[in-house]
Amino acid sequence: MELLSGVTVGRVVISRHTLPAIRPVNHLIDEGWVVIRTRQDVSLVGSASVSGVVAYEADVLDPATWTGWSVTITGTASVVRATAELACYRGLLTRWVDGGGGADQVALISPGNVSGYRLVRTGPAST
Amino acid sequence: MELLSGVTVGRVVISRHTLPAIRPVNHLIDEGWVVIRTRQDVSLVGSASVSGVVAYEADVLDPATWTGWSVTITGTASVVRATAELACYRGLLTRWVDGGGGADQVALISPGNVSGYRLVRTGPAST
Repeated sequence: MELLSGVTVGRVVISRHTLPAIRPVNHLIDEGWVVIRTRQDVSLVGSASVSGVVAYEADVLDPATWTGWSVTITGTASVVRATAELACYRGLLTRWVDGGGGADQVALISPGNVSGYRLVRTGPAST
Repeated sequence: MELLSGVTVGRVVISRHTLPAIRPVNHLIDEGWVVIRTRQDVSLVGSASVSGVVAYEADVLDPATWTGWSVTITGTASVVRATAELACYRGLLTRWVDGGGGADQVALISPGNVSGYRLVRTGPAST
């Protein structure tokens, strides 16, 4: 969670039509919860995502040295609906969109399962 | 696919025990196929992943300017088993692991569905 707090960008993974879909989003960590802001066409909860379980990954990767880290959280996403809470998070989070407007949503991801690892180079192998 | 060719790192998404799992890997584009190298504990095909369908995402994101792009490919993964082909790809691809050894595998992902978008800043909104 410390590593996650140090970056502002990650990728949320959901199931859409039984296929995995992935989107880059902006995040912040609030009392151990991962808070993200994304377009409403990304169905974080409901029928499109079984029981609202999502994965959230953030990493720092250096292709030049092949080092870095990756952290993945698997947890339940719940969409923020309280007006004041929503306004607060919207002020703190930047939304990334592919141009155009469209409604957005803020969701909290519970840190159900947190796993991570550091990456080290093994290089092209001869075997 | 041109954007994908320009970078060497992406993230493969699979279903593991019905939950999404995501791993950073090294890739190359070969005749329209995405070739990745990863540890064998990442089950790309078989019972752990329904019909071997995976998502592969690569992006270039700049948190300072909130610009960049993201491309996601959804396709069927097939593990390379031919010895010569395997040796060839292993020479071209770097494997990222969390220390230690362990067997690795090379897989081809068919470009079944390619989608992408460019990111632009909207900034923290007041509404």
